Amino acid sequence: MPPTADEGVLNATFCATLVDEWVRSGVTDAVVAPGSRSTPLALALAARPELAVQVHHDERAAGFVALGLGMATGRPAVVLTTSGTAAVELHPAVVEAHQAGVPLVVATADRPPELHDVGAPQTVDQTHLFGRAVRWFAEPGPPAPAAASTWRSLASRSVVEAVDGVGGPGPVHLNLAFREPLLGRAAPLPAGRGEGEPWHVGGGTRTTVDRRGLEGLTAVLDGARGVIVAGAGCGPVDDVVALADAAGWPILADARSGCRSAGRPAILHADALLRCERFAEDVVPEVVLRLGAPPASKVLAGWLAASGARQVAVDADGRWFDPDRTATHVVRADPGSVLRALARSFDGGWVGDWGGRWAAAEASASAAVDAVLAGHDEPTEPGVARTLCRSLPGHASLVVSSSMPIRDVEWFGGPTAVRVLANRGANGIDGVVSTAVGVALAARWAGGPTVALVGDVAFLHDSNALLGLAARGVDLTIVVVDNDGGGIFSFLPQAEALDTERFEQLFGTPHGVDPLAVAAAHGIDGTTVTAAPELAGVLRGALDRGGVHVVRVVTDRAANVAVHREIHDAVAAALASSHPGSDPNRAGDGV
Amino acid sequence: MPPTADEGVLNATFCATLVDEWVRSGVTDAVVAPGSRSTPLALALAARPELAVQVHHDERAAGFVALGLGMATGRPAVVLTTSGTAAVELHPAVVEAHQAGVPLVVATADRPPELHDVGAPQTVDQTHLFGRAVRWFAEPGPPAPAAASTWRSLASRSVVEAVDGVGGPGPVHLNLAFREPLLGRAAPLPAGRGEGEPWHVGGGTRTTVDRRGLEGLTAVLDGARGVIVAGAGCGPVDDVVALADAAGWPILADARSGCRSAGRPAILHADALLRCERFAEDVVPEVVLRLGAPPASKVLAGWLAASGARQVAVDADGRWFDPDRTATHVVRADPGSVLRALARSFDGGWVGDWGGRWAAAEASASAAVDAVLAGHDEPTEPGVARTLCRSLPGHASLVVSSSMPIRDVEWFGGPTAVRVLANRGANGIDGVVSTAVGVALAARWAGGPTVALVGDVAFLHDSNALLGLAARGVDLTIVVVDNDGGGIFSFLPQAEALDTERFEQLFGTPHGVDPLAVAAAHGIDGTTVTAAPELAGVLRGALDRGGVHVVRVVTDRAANVAVHREIHDAVAAALASSHPGSDPNRAGDGV
Repeated sequence: MPPTADEGVLNATFCATLVDEWVRSGVTDAVVAPGSRSTPLALALAARPELAVQVHHDERAAGFVALGLGMATGRPAVVLTTSGTAAVELHPAVVEAHQAGVPLVVATADRPPELHDVGAPQTVDQTHLFGRAVRWFAEPGPPAPAAASTWRSLASRSVVEAVDGVGGPGPVHLNLAFREPLLGRAAPLPAGRGEGEPWHVGGGTRTTVDRRGLEGLTAVLDGARGVIVAGAGCGPVDDVVALADAAGWPILADARSGCRSAGRPAILHADALLRCERFAEDVVPEVVLRLGAPPASKVLAGWLAASGARQVAVDADGRWFDPDRTATHVVRADPGSVLRALARSFDGGWVGDWGGRWAAAEASASAAVDAVLAGHDEPTEPGVARTLCRSLPGHASLVVSSSMPIRDVEWFGGPTAVRVLANRGANGIDGVVSTAVGVALAARWAGGPTVALVGDVAFLHDSNALLGLAARGVDLTIVVVDNDGGGIFSFLPQAEALDTERFEQLFGTPHGVDPLAVAAAHGIDGTTVTAAPELAGVLRGALDRGGVHVVRVVTDRAANVAVHREIHDAVAAALASSHPGSDPNRAGDGV
Repeated sequence: MPPTADEGVLNATFCATLVDEWVRSGVTDAVVAPGSRSTPLALALAARPELAVQVHHDERAAGFVALGLGMATGRPAVVLTTSGTAAVELHPAVVEAHQAGVPLVVATADRPPELHDVGAPQTVDQTHLFGRAVRWFAEPGPPAPAAASTWRSLASRSVVEAVDGVGGPGPVHLNLAFREPLLGRAAPLPAGRGEGEPWHVGGGTRTTVDRRGLEGLTAVLDGARGVIVAGAGCGPVDDVVALADAAGWPILADARSGCRSAGRPAILHADALLRCERFAEDVVPEVVLRLGAPPASKVLAGWLAASGARQVAVDADGRWFDPDRTATHVVRADPGSVLRALARSFDGGWVGDWGGRWAAAEASASAAVDAVLAGHDEPTEPGVARTLCRSLPGHASLVVSSSMPIRDVEWFGGPTAVRVLANRGANGIDGVVSTAVGVALAARWAGGPTVALVGDVAFLHDSNALLGLAARGVDLTIVVVDNDGGGIFSFLPQAEALDTERFEQLFGTPHGVDPLAVAAAHGIDGTTVTAAPELAGVLRGALDRGGVHVVRVVTDRAANVAVHREIHDAVAAALASSHPGSDPNRAGDGV
């Protein structure tokens, strides 16, 4: 482009170049919050038919929508805000993307350097605004002709850093200063690579174990009595299953592992099983292979920590998942290639009834859970999780809130064909519905309907996810388990130690707000489910109709604790024949 | 306290000590978001009858409630969150407190060091989470007996730093790690100072001008044709008025200056007056005394910048308010003492019709605004601002949103007896309703009802301010000027440069949500005002009934631009006799 002194032209040309390079780099989605300083980039994004642009009034929610898009597609969405607290509002989503390893390109508009720190309106210090929670931060300053040859690299690199950054996928932050005028017509862009290629191509690499590493792991694992704990990021299901078969080990499969498809051999009720002390003692492993992120179950974590087993933790992005310091080997490599290498090098696997004992216990537990839930006509929280996992079609995505829903799905969901997603980087209850909106938007590129499972507090926390939602053209059903407050606290020591008034004030926190009234204010229809058997049909109806629906399932916090206990008792009773004297561990009532 | 190895006892004792010291330091309010890791401090706060504790489900809103409390009282409120993104959610309110100079004590619960960076749940890097946007950051680590002698200092200093920190009042951040168990009974606290005194007493100082400084300012200002621009933080009204009288200068009074009480001589329509080129040229000053934060008017700022006048900027907290680089003197001192010193040292003041010309123009402008608004039976946005300023009782507080409301109040509000507050640190539209909730809560300590003036986008952005609001026992009326989208953009070049569809997509952003439906979902009643003359009565009724109300005033974005122009035309016409040939400057249509 020719040198020019017209800031409007410079802004427009710079932004059109960024967007062109993002499109070449495979970006398909942008989320834009209204603002003035961000005008040049907002217009450039909206001008490209290759991009789907969502406009969102609340930047916090916009950040989580972009997070959901990145989580579902593996491609970063671009989220754009104007300057000031609008930019700050993205911080929660950035932290979640950072810790969960979700690609995200954050673009914040800024005022130019000469307007900083002099009382100019809507001007805050946005340099390194998100601290260490980004893979990459860049601040190119106001567009300058002399730097035009670097613009394509800037945008292209932002995608490479978000997808293939050191430490794996995550958020990047471009802080973009614009001088007035903010409007202008773009000059011809700096030339890009031929054939529409992006300026930089990243990735195309994979870290695996070398010969020494493989020998070390094989020496520890081969022939030992082991378990695989498969979390999110565990690697390809076929590889996990193949190694489990080769070794004769059970797969303790987290809901997000992808290893819960019905028919595959996996342990889906580890939490309930391991609450039975006798069983837990009888199945102590010698080795543990931990793949990806850890499950939510404290009971499982405690059992692993107490096992004395040698533990191998594998994570593709090199995250150090080891709160109990029990990992003997930390393998920062692609789990799939590690699993395949191990399967090839294993000699014979462990012989005996080890796998069979786990499988038998799993079958007993699963039947016991079903039996308990069949006895409840009123909706129960474990029952809602199980119904969703069982009844949703295989092309659906299930976005599960932190707090109780992720636990109910992990512990009681059972087999499921759906893809389970959750914000488990920082485990916040914020932004869950917006994340689901992002996942639902991503379904336009591939996939079926999206269902979110959230509690009433998480739903209300993120009620601004509903802004504009009815018009976004998505298929999203939001199931709100409504126990009028914070249900998880009923499982914590606070519930027994405090008097009811204090507990309800600080932890129970009833609010009395009907989620369906909030939904209705946003033009979204809703249904209340009051009997357990209705839920599957209501869900089916919502999915058949398409569009956005809220399904409210009314539960009770105290009754929820009781049904959890009832299930644990039933699982213990079911194990009694094979593990006589088993009682559910009362100390394990918690979450 | 005796050394103990019981973490529950340590946590409880540490927290009870912090709270005791906060109470001694004058803290009266806390805002607590539900969480588990924060349990020790939540319980300690709730245990003290001297403290009013608000529980809020949304940390972002909780932060702004605490901001409003600090803004209204000058005392920091304590806002407490659990760990993880819950803590991150406070960032917008912290940035606003930082830039607006509002005292705030942020307490975030954290997991202990040994649970960091190992995949433990709800654990993020909270060290210096808010970057440079705090006056003080402290991270004492998990409570340890050996450090017990420092606990009182920690809490007491947090208040001193928030109220009297270097750079003036602002936010402080205590990141507090707790080990399990989180419950325990407090041991005897470390002894405090006698007589219930706080550990540290800060403040009690004031920076004023010395002899050399006074001589320099007097040489510049005395006898010159000057104007005073009085913003928030301008100093005591009596001192401003006394200097204006001594010098014969007009006071161009921002709505937040406190200098707009009816009957006092001040220029309240500077923006409209200075849009008339002839008038603006006729009243160019030789000197300008800028007190506190600048008004929102770009027209006023541009006129000052072009004036060539010598300009003296005074700010008590040393903020450098000078976006146009026109300040010749930057006086970082208490405005009141500067004003009194100047008034004593001034020789005679400027003689002539200078003040009279301003006063006459002001009277003409005010009458013209009244006449235009009297001609509109339908509600107008300038009319809403004027009605609020005129009709609210003197003991009320008016919390005004950024974007158009602050401009409408500044430009068209006219005389008012109420205290006008706004988030003008970063000028965000986020958290405005929550800030008003905080101001309304503060009224329990002193003051009358609170009224908020917000647009529909700001209202919806902060709809979670309504969580629990009906039960907070406050008198708060929220006036929502509802033009179904972002009204300010209709005044920007984007409105004329873009086609309607693109403009509405990115800037107009209609949402179709009725604020009253959102309010109703939270059990809050509302009224729609469809005729301008109804508003005063509806307001009076709401204030008489007490409690929380939402008043929706339906306006139209295009009509709003037209009525602004109509007012500017009328003011120009009114000035025509004294300033023949005056036309409103069409280039000054913007905001």
